[in-house]
Amino acid sequence: MKSDIEICRTTPLLPIAQIAAKLGLTEDDITPHGHLKAKIKPSVLQRYQSKQKGKLVLVTAITPTPLGEGKTVTTIGLAQGLAKIDQSVVACIRQPSMGPVFGVKGGAAGGGYSQVAPMDKLNLHLTGDIHAISAAHNLAAAAIDARLYHETRLGYAEFEQKTGLSALRIDPDRIVWRRTMDHNDRTLRHITIGHNAPGSTANGIERQCGFDITAASELMAIVALARSLKDMRERIGRVVLAYNLDGEPITAEDLKVAGAMAVSMREVIEPTLMQTLEGVPTLIHAGPFANIAHGNSSIIADEIAESLADFVVTEAGFGSDMGFEKACNIKATQANRHPDCAVIVATLRGLKANSGLYDLRPGQPLPDAIFGPDEQALRAGFENLRWHINNVKKYGMPAVVAINRFPQDDEQELKLLEAWIQALDVAVACSEAFAKGGEGATALAHAVVKACQQPCHFQPLYQSCESLSDKFSAVAIKGYGALGVSLSEQALEQIHELTTLGYDHLSVCLAKTPLSISHDTSLKGAPEGFTIPIREVRLCAGAGFIYALCGNVLTMPGLPELPAYMQLDLDEQGDVVGLS
Amino acid sequence: MKSDIEICRTTPLLPIAQIAAKLGLTEDDITPHGHLKAKIKPSVLQRYQSKQKGKLVLVTAITPTPLGEGKTVTTIGLAQGLAKIDQSVVACIRQPSMGPVFGVKGGAAGGGYSQVAPMDKLNLHLTGDIHAISAAHNLAAAAIDARLYHETRLGYAEFEQKTGLSALRIDPDRIVWRRTMDHNDRTLRHITIGHNAPGSTANGIERQCGFDITAASELMAIVALARSLKDMRERIGRVVLAYNLDGEPITAEDLKVAGAMAVSMREVIEPTLMQTLEGVPTLIHAGPFANIAHGNSSIIADEIAESLADFVVTEAGFGSDMGFEKACNIKATQANRHPDCAVIVATLRGLKANSGLYDLRPGQPLPDAIFGPDEQALRAGFENLRWHINNVKKYGMPAVVAINRFPQDDEQELKLLEAWIQALDVAVACSEAFAKGGEGATALAHAVVKACQQPCHFQPLYQSCESLSDKFSAVAIKGYGALGVSLSEQALEQIHELTTLGYDHLSVCLAKTPLSISHDTSLKGAPEGFTIPIREVRLCAGAGFIYALCGNVLTMPGLPELPAYMQLDLDEQGDVVGLS
Repeated sequence: MKSDIEICRTTPLLPIAQIAAKLGLTEDDITPHGHLKAKIKPSVLQRYQSKQKGKLVLVTAITPTPLGEGKTVTTIGLAQGLAKIDQSVVACIRQPSMGPVFGVKGGAAGGGYSQVAPMDKLNLHLTGDIHAISAAHNLAAAAIDARLYHETRLGYAEFEQKTGLSALRIDPDRIVWRRTMDHNDRTLRHITIGHNAPGSTANGIERQCGFDITAASELMAIVALARSLKDMRERIGRVVLAYNLDGEPITAEDLKVAGAMAVSMREVIEPTLMQTLEGVPTLIHAGPFANIAHGNSSIIADEIAESLADFVVTEAGFGSDMGFEKACNIKATQANRHPDCAVIVATLRGLKANSGLYDLRPGQPLPDAIFGPDEQALRAGFENLRWHINNVKKYGMPAVVAINRFPQDDEQELKLLEAWIQALDVAVACSEAFAKGGEGATALAHAVVKACQQPCHFQPLYQSCESLSDKFSAVAIKGYGALGVSLSEQALEQIHELTTLGYDHLSVCLAKTPLSISHDTSLKGAPEGFTIPIREVRLCAGAGFIYALCGNVLTMPGLPELPAYMQLDLDEQGDVVGLS
Repeated sequence: MKSDIEICRTTPLLPIAQIAAKLGLTEDDITPHGHLKAKIKPSVLQRYQSKQKGKLVLVTAITPTPLGEGKTVTTIGLAQGLAKIDQSVVACIRQPSMGPVFGVKGGAAGGGYSQVAPMDKLNLHLTGDIHAISAAHNLAAAAIDARLYHETRLGYAEFEQKTGLSALRIDPDRIVWRRTMDHNDRTLRHITIGHNAPGSTANGIERQCGFDITAASELMAIVALARSLKDMRERIGRVVLAYNLDGEPITAEDLKVAGAMAVSMREVIEPTLMQTLEGVPTLIHAGPFANIAHGNSSIIADEIAESLADFVVTEAGFGSDMGFEKACNIKATQANRHPDCAVIVATLRGLKANSGLYDLRPGQPLPDAIFGPDEQALRAGFENLRWHINNVKKYGMPAVVAINRFPQDDEQELKLLEAWIQALDVAVACSEAFAKGGEGATALAHAVVKACQQPCHFQPLYQSCESLSDKFSAVAIKGYGALGVSLSEQALEQIHELTTLGYDHLSVCLAKTPLSISHDTSLKGAPEGFTIPIREVRLCAGAGFIYALCGNVLTMPGLPELPAYMQLDLDEQGDVVGLS
């Protein structure tokens, strides 16, 4: 089979204006970025206010493994499958971060014959949204350090006299806004900034700081959750950058930098329209992390897609304990709109890897056994899938299991797995979207259409009026099946402070490992009897949630010994080679 | 008079495809980015190989002052003036950096009725080139630190065995590649990266580092000097990132990161087409510093413009001792093409500020006297203009002085100044391009057309075969009128090393203050009898020059107490306000 980029390059694509026209969009509704990408103006929503909204299908998965379950392939494949059975459909995906493109993972455009195209444009720069977010984020960082510098250098009284501004009296030990870069750069995780020659402050005030990858910026979560440009501007104003010497929050509005940040991000609020290899319209918009943020595509993209098509297929980060939980408890609450059906992606190899019966270590080659028949491992790993099926049902949502089939998969095992799933009274379909495109996903498409006709009695796990501790407990107990949460002293103090400051109405976002349903990566399958430890909580006042650190969460990846960038180059014609 | 952004917003603009069509470009030649910007494919050059090239007019200025001489206004105004007298014309300018937009200076699109439009698009993100350059630059930085980390962590032997690569044996004290960000952020000038918990190296190897503003990246100079995508790719490969423990250079090619950097910058090689308020086609491309780099618009943009129009108006950074010198000795040499005529911009107030008779201090308000008549100051400041006129003549190039007239200017003084200039046998014309657009610059346009008909006996100050020391001396003595250069011990050693390594054939770029023709900002007018001290020299093997630090050169600006970002916001309609 050809490589992803070869398939992509040899598949004819339609001009993006034609894709837009298929959706009923005019030239005034879009801003072209080249001939194969266009920004869509959110103002199109006004035209469709009275139209019946399309069904929202959310693709999630079993607990992720080093093998990759093919969630994006299935998302794009399902959209193509729905188109094949003559449904009107739009796919909504997150924008890939460039860090992993140059690092380990490579691109994130789907794969095989289920890709968003052109994949090099999708994976690199796209329409500049991530860069604009980095620019706005780092402007705020430069602004708070510059203000600290000038207030320190001049003294508060002289600063106020000279500028006519009120001194903010920033506590240099409580600047909570880090810097961002869309790269995997481990050496920037913990840095000291503002070094000076002895006796000088010309280079600012020295302090500890660090960089996160841009996907981890609160501004990224804001883009994904904002309802309009105006809402985005207001959320940016609410972002807390630091605390003053009295412990009061200092927002971007207080620093008078929120307007400029919104100016930098003005066009980021517009989703980018592209197409799959089979010409299915696809909206790409925002790419928040699925641990310290909610890990889903944007509300605005979903809304536009639902106005233009009968089916909208989108995906949530990691397993259903992660992105799907946050889609239900954070995104759906803020959007006032929940998915109509969930698709749970599973693979034979992924279930076996979830069995706990293999010795899988990061950086080590995978055992061959995982790719051959092994009923014992499959049965053990099935407990993981059963957990995720029950998890989706818990929210009152119809579920469909998509078995992403690989050519080497054992026919017997596939039949066995299907039978186990059917015994749970859940729809199941095999998908061969990677090898066959939409044609390989028509069975899945039919199952999804049927599931969307079922009633959905959606309910989130908590109400916003509950206390922060109760909300954390609700996610741990009802969401993960834990016995409860154990809050560190620091976390208790922070929850008390945030409650006093009036932030207790916000949603909660638990940042735990995606590699286990629990907080402990060694607990495979469907663990029970664990308690989630919360070390620290952090405020995202603009995004509208408070996230809790449960264990180590890395917000800046590193490059491996043999990084993906080594494969990338331009060929004689100036085309990109080596991207997968 | 209306504000710049008000004028810009109320002026009707043509669709960019129509501007392109005026130049004879088809839809296949351009990649639209919205309706008012488009990238131009350099492949158009092949169509025009046999066509006679247009005249290249280079706009320079007297020694810059805090008042702003209006060089970009005059550049855009002259282009509009040439169009008014029925000449076919394209303007070529550099892309403004976002740092100063949010910092002190505000936008850089010209002003009044001589602007590139829309000015908010020009000043913010444009078509993403600066972001792509930052991404490529910081990828190389992350790559070198990651390689240092892995080789240190594993040891050279195990690293080679595990990866199949040869260990680079990077000298951690000789990593010369810093990081970049398109912001004014003084606290990032000197930083320590790679802090770890005790006993750990998980966050990389700790070392001193720092950020420059992206305009100061060697990659920016490469874009401005590259002749093609292929040439850009090869130059990126030659960039020296570090030295190994034997003192040998480690290039981006050695690190196998050059291909990925070129992939990130693939579209940066294409200039962006916009228009002036009067519909004159304008190419925006690259924005290198005019001290540590050569400070001119790109060779590719000039070449495309010369193929499409009879006149090309471009500008060089700072006074004629800076950007103009580098246009002649670096850019013209690499392009094998020199300007046909130079325009020297002067103002009454700017000449007075150059007199040395006022006490001008950074951050202090300007004395009122500078705006009223003051013949003594004007006469003293005229020595500066005389120097710049002679400087242009030195290169064998016809010169035109453009007096950028302000409404408050004294009629008597203007007459006096014109007479002094005419006495030097140089053409002179007043320009009122700010207040009147092209109509205010027709006299200047006529003078420029005439100057371009004169013969140009261009010669650069040195040949590439001369020794590095001789080339530095040539610029100091012949270029600035200095007695010579004094090389520090460090500089002498570095010149020796670079010569041994075979880099002595490169051009030289003196990074001195732009605020005096000498290296000393306190020497105003036309200083004499000074010696240029060279503290340190640095290699830009990809850009093809070696730059010398003569005094303190800031490559990362800071934000002032009342930064420009405080004025910026979105209005109710979502339009940008507060940009000037």
